[in-house]
Amino acid sequence: MKWRCMCLVIHAPEDLRLTEQAVSDPGPGQVIVKVGMGGICGSDLHYFNHGGFGTVRLQEPMVLGHEVAGTVAAVGEGVTAVKPGDRVAVNPSRPCGACGYCLEGLPNQCLDMRFYGSAMRMPHVQGAFRDHLLCEAVQCVPVAPGVPMQLAALAEPFSVGLHAVSRAGSLLGKRVLVSGCGPIGVLAIAAARVHGAAEIVATDVVDQPLVVARAMGAKRTINVATETQWVAEYSANKGSFDVMLECSGNQRALRDGLEVMRPRGTVVQLGLGGDVSIPQNMVVAKELSICGSFRFHHEFALAVRLINEGRIDLSPVITRAFPMAQASEAFALAGDRQRAMKVLIDFSAEAQAA
Amino acid sequence: MKWRCMCLVIHAPEDLRLTEQAVSDPGPGQVIVKVGMGGICGSDLHYFNHGGFGTVRLQEPMVLGHEVAGTVAAVGEGVTAVKPGDRVAVNPSRPCGACGYCLEGLPNQCLDMRFYGSAMRMPHVQGAFRDHLLCEAVQCVPVAPGVPMQLAALAEPFSVGLHAVSRAGSLLGKRVLVSGCGPIGVLAIAAARVHGAAEIVATDVVDQPLVVARAMGAKRTINVATETQWVAEYSANKGSFDVMLECSGNQRALRDGLEVMRPRGTVVQLGLGGDVSIPQNMVVAKELSICGSFRFHHEFALAVRLINEGRIDLSPVITRAFPMAQASEAFALAGDRQRAMKVLIDFSAEAQAA
Amino acid sequence: MKWRCMCLVIHAPEDLRLTEQAVSDPGPGQVIVKVGMGGICGSDLHYFNHGGFGTVRLQEPMVLGHEVAGTVAAVGEGVTAVKPGDRVAVNPSRPCGACGYCLEGLPNQCLDMRFYGSAMRMPHVQGAFRDHLLCEAVQCVPVAPGVPMQLAALAEPFSVGLHAVSRAGSLLGKRVLVSGCGPIGVLAIAAARVHGAAEIVATDVVDQPLVVARAMGAKRTINVATETQWVAEYSANKGSFDVMLECSGNQRALRDGLEVMRPRGTVVQLGLGGDVSIPQNMVVAKELSICGSFRFHHEFALAVRLINEGRIDLSPVITRAFPMAQASEAFALAGDRQRAMKVLIDFSAEAQAA
Amino acid sequence: MKWRCMCLVIHAPEDLRLTEQAVSDPGPGQVIVKVGMGGICGSDLHYFNHGGFGTVRLQEPMVLGHEVAGTVAAVGEGVTAVKPGDRVAVNPSRPCGACGYCLEGLPNQCLDMRFYGSAMRMPHVQGAFRDHLLCEAVQCVPVAPGVPMQLAALAEPFSVGLHAVSRAGSLLGKRVLVSGCGPIGVLAIAAARVHGAAEIVATDVVDQPLVVARAMGAKRTINVATETQWVAEYSANKGSFDVMLECSGNQRALRDGLEVMRPRGTVVQLGLGGDVSIPQNMVVAKELSICGSFRFHHEFALAVRLINEGRIDLSPVITRAFPMAQASEAFALAGDRQRAMKVLIDFSAEAQAA
Repeated sequence: MKWRCMCLVIHAPEDLRLTEQAVSDPGPGQVIVKVGMGGICGSDLHYFNHGGFGTVRLQEPMVLGHEVAGTVAAVGEGVTAVKPGDRVAVNPSRPCGACGYCLEGLPNQCLDMRFYGSAMRMPHVQGAFRDHLLCEAVQCVPVAPGVPMQLAALAEPFSVGLHAVSRAGSLLGKRVLVSGCGPIGVLAIAAARVHGAAEIVATDVVDQPLVVARAMGAKRTINVATETQWVAEYSANKGSFDVMLECSGNQRALRDGLEVMRPRGTVVQLGLGGDVSIPQNMVVAKELSICGSFRFHHEFALAVRLINEGRIDLSPVITRAFPMAQASEAFALAGDRQRAMKVLIDFSAEAQAA
Repeated sequence: MKWRCMCLVIHAPEDLRLTEQAVSDPGPGQVIVKVGMGGICGSDLHYFNHGGFGTVRLQEPMVLGHEVAGTVAAVGEGVTAVKPGDRVAVNPSRPCGACGYCLEGLPNQCLDMRFYGSAMRMPHVQGAFRDHLLCEAVQCVPVAPGVPMQLAALAEPFSVGLHAVSRAGSLLGKRVLVSGCGPIGVLAIAAARVHGAAEIVATDVVDQPLVVARAMGAKRTINVATETQWVAEYSANKGSFDVMLECSGNQRALRDGLEVMRPRGTVVQLGLGGDVSIPQNMVVAKELSICGSFRFHHEFALAVRLINEGRIDLSPVITRAFPMAQASEAFALAGDRQRAMKVLIDFSAEAQAA
Repeated sequence: MKWRCMCLVIHAPEDLRLTEQAVSDPGPGQVIVKVGMGGICGSDLHYFNHGGFGTVRLQEPMVLGHEVAGTVAAVGEGVTAVKPGDRVAVNPSRPCGACGYCLEGLPNQCLDMRFYGSAMRMPHVQGAFRDHLLCEAVQCVPVAPGVPMQLAALAEPFSVGLHAVSRAGSLLGKRVLVSGCGPIGVLAIAAARVHGAAEIVATDVVDQPLVVARAMGAKRTINVATETQWVAEYSANKGSFDVMLECSGNQRALRDGLEVMRPRGTVVQLGLGGDVSIPQNMVVAKELSICGSFRFHHEFALAVRLINEGRIDLSPVITRAFPMAQASEAFALAGDRQRAMKVLIDFSAEAQAA
Repeated sequence: MKWRCMCLVIHAPEDLRLTEQAVSDPGPGQVIVKVGMGGICGSDLHYFNHGGFGTVRLQEPMVLGHEVAGTVAAVGEGVTAVKPGDRVAVNPSRPCGACGYCLEGLPNQCLDMRFYGSAMRMPHVQGAFRDHLLCEAVQCVPVAPGVPMQLAALAEPFSVGLHAVSRAGSLLGKRVLVSGCGPIGVLAIAAARVHGAAEIVATDVVDQPLVVARAMGAKRTINVATETQWVAEYSANKGSFDVMLECSGNQRALRDGLEVMRPRGTVVQLGLGGDVSIPQNMVVAKELSICGSFRFHHEFALAVRLINEGRIDLSPVITRAFPMAQASEAFALAGDRQRAMKVLIDFSAEAQAA
């Protein structure tokens, strides 16, 4: 049997098409997920707006999307962990499990990673913005009854925040600065909050995201476009923060952060930028650490668990969901930081019918 | 009683004067050290050549020098750890022992540090390039019989290398890249070698220092001014090195290093530069860490111990010693990387008489 | 001026006397705290019931108590951090700030510690179960308006739990086992919960404390006196828990814990026992770590902050408070694990009048 | 083709038989190694003397041995890393590469480990005491020209010492105590020495092994059967050692070690014993860590590298080699701590002919 499947395929900048594809029956260990919700990520936006980012460019049509949750529709041979009707979040990360990095416990550094909706390799890895998705059962993490599908679709970006927190080590008693309050930034705040940061201060250059930052647990928020004294305030005695989660990719944010970090503090860099200029002597003199954080691994299951148990309410992160047919409007809204945090696409039959 | 003391005082760029000062008798817990040898450090050279570095500028005459060893001439009340006649290396680092950082075990981050021969604070902290030095007994670490005074004077820069290695964690099984083979770089190689680095590769843009790098334990040395394939060679499978000790302060060295680091690798930054531009996306994607390393603490006593026990022979680091009266020639030679590694000044009476 | 002060002095087992002492005016940097509430700790109980524990025995009369909170009554010269009328929790830990351990950032290992109400040294360090307490301003951490004094008095034992959690490193994604649900155990659960433990399972041999364990965040509680299958259940595939907080000091609890730990897991040992027998081969084969945790340091201020901000509600830990005159009844109740968790003594004038 | 192969098969305590077996041609990725030397390990001795240890008992005949080196005789399809004639050390550890622990980077905790010469599973894993060994090419690490085969055969036990050192973290500036100077103990000393331990003190209850301990880098050795003051000497100010490598499995050694450890010190437990009684209160009060260390992983290749490069001379560890036909004499000598350190069996044709 073949499953009829509607996909959102990017062909070129702003050329996003709703296309029908056939999907095979699940093989051994596989399942078909009827996708419910899919969140639009920054990388999706880059493909949509610019056809890629950095050296990563679209070279062939590609289904977008990697932040999805849905309902199991069918299972292949030998699948026991989930059954038809189960609601699941889908882990878009598929490391090879055999390369040196996988065997070191660093699957996010896999030499043969197939991550949904990514043009990093050729042929591109097709994404999950589709109403039926064939995937491995091990990618599916059950979502608890009562958890809205929109929240379940946040598991992936929440994982990114959790992984960043894991890179910082224990946050017990730590003062944490978060710069850049887009979806990753506010979910990093949530992750830091759940893991006991003593105090979280968040910065952005736009006011609206800072409202969400406060809802996620920031004690103080600063619009650094307009407030100018904050660096002086926090840089006394060599600095105030133990940990910085740099989610903006912005050079100024990083440099200001280095200024307000305490000696031996750790900056976890999640935000992607290009070349940034850093004050080497300050890094040396305060013995600061700048540590990259890339995607996630074990944190996906943890993200779903925290959402399932209601350990933190992520609903303030969600702006709105659009039916598939209005995907372009969804992308347009997602790109407007004054109006939008996380925008989703609703792949359910009900949404299309409405 | 007063001790007659000849000092090397810097007044302005290239204005270095041999000046007589009086030195008081040692108070309780203090000693007078008859200085034997003093090594010229990069910061001494900056004061001599440019009157300072960055925002640190000479504002008053200052005795230079902080890498010295000598012989105890007199001890104050209550001093039992050393006695007249003992040969000692003198730790130039004098943290306050009472500020928050000192009480966290981070005395090298002391808020009230008095480090010999430094214009960072006003009045400047007078240095140790003098034939008689009044200091605290706790600054003195005994030097074993038979250890040449020149080697004892390397304890301080060797400490800097040891501290950098301590920032990298265990080197067991690790491949280490050292960039910049000036005195700090080659002593960092020695420190990495003593601590079991599996393999050390060293780079510089000048050939002569690489000879010393090999003598200190580098398995391979690369003149990156002329050899161009090395980055490609070491960047396969995302990279080859676990640890980098960046001793050049040079942007290109750091950027090439990031390229050849393995995922999750650690760059320890010791070299001082200005603003350097780093590829943020590579730091993120490979989850690299860039960690500053500043001066040293416990490592001073360790450096003397390793020298005392002959655990590694540091003599290839030493270029030549000059009597005090030829200090300007010593500084001139010290600034020439093709001819000099570590240049010292001999403060002994014998040297002056010769 | 002298302050009249009533103290609870232990003379011998079960010989606890309410005694008047004079207290001096606060000197520079000192304050007088009118004590509100004081919690009875296990060590207080040991002095009361047995005159000490292990080799630590009462050799002279000693004021008991170290878990107190109250209101500043007077301040000495130079005190600006608190003022009369401020409500404060009092840190009973007074490290010397000058020994080697203090200067390594390990003040809880201070060689000259003066910890309230402790017979470890001679003369004994007098405790804080008194209505007026002369202490250093730096021992006082302000309590937020609206926080009941009883909760403020939990800051000290909560610190012990927080310190134990800090010894385990990050709890992100970790499964945590807590054995022994006395006051320290349930506050360790609270500490682990605040710091993001993915799942907490708690054990005891008495049912009543397990109710509080659940209130503090344990997902599952097990009465190991009656339930026998749990070890087999959790020891599949070499074990299930990443971290154990061993709060019972009981050999059986530790041994069962080692059985259910995953390879490379960490047992933090807080509970005090005597000699315990451990299966060495299992520690080796699973590469387990058993790490001691003793008292606290920075965690005291953190405990007060978490209580002030209501990050977790510790009120289920509190059983009841008694006026000073009924101190012996308080001690009797505190020793009954089926009826009591944390019992306090109310030192306020109002309580005595009632 | 079949290879004729003579094996040392243990049938029951002291029933060791030289038996002929057929060995198949190497399949894809496999090689035939003509074994040169094989070291007798403590576990081999246990099988020989007692038929096993703890719950691990011989249930069927088993070829002994896992510390071997030899010469490649033939290679299967696709093998390029080694070729006939290459001298290699053979890693006896064969993790599955697919279980959860393997994918966490903990292959020594593999749930499906096949380790040469082990009766832990049924059927037993046959060992490497044979003149021809069929193994995977990835198990073979090339031995440098000029390295005696006897030293190459030490790679496996040296790996055990290196792994233990890796569990302790960086040894920079650390004082290390090693208890139990059998082959594992003295190789752990070598490993600690190569990784920069500032000072190594070694203990045993027999004099002869302490001679080898000194040759491997112990600065001081103590026969704790006769010297009684050492614990008092090293326990001042709460203790002296940062790291202990406990290689004896003896309760007294562990307890004395805990006494002389500094606060926050780490005891790495390698020695296997049964139940041992530890002073829980001391572990708590000094916040000590006891960490198990089991076998090795990456350290095997590192061991060969260190031997190849002559970074430390392990020859004092070797007592004597016997031809296969005298295996029982070899085992008898290996069990006598006053006469033997590492005893080997020489599987070469030359040895048998002699």
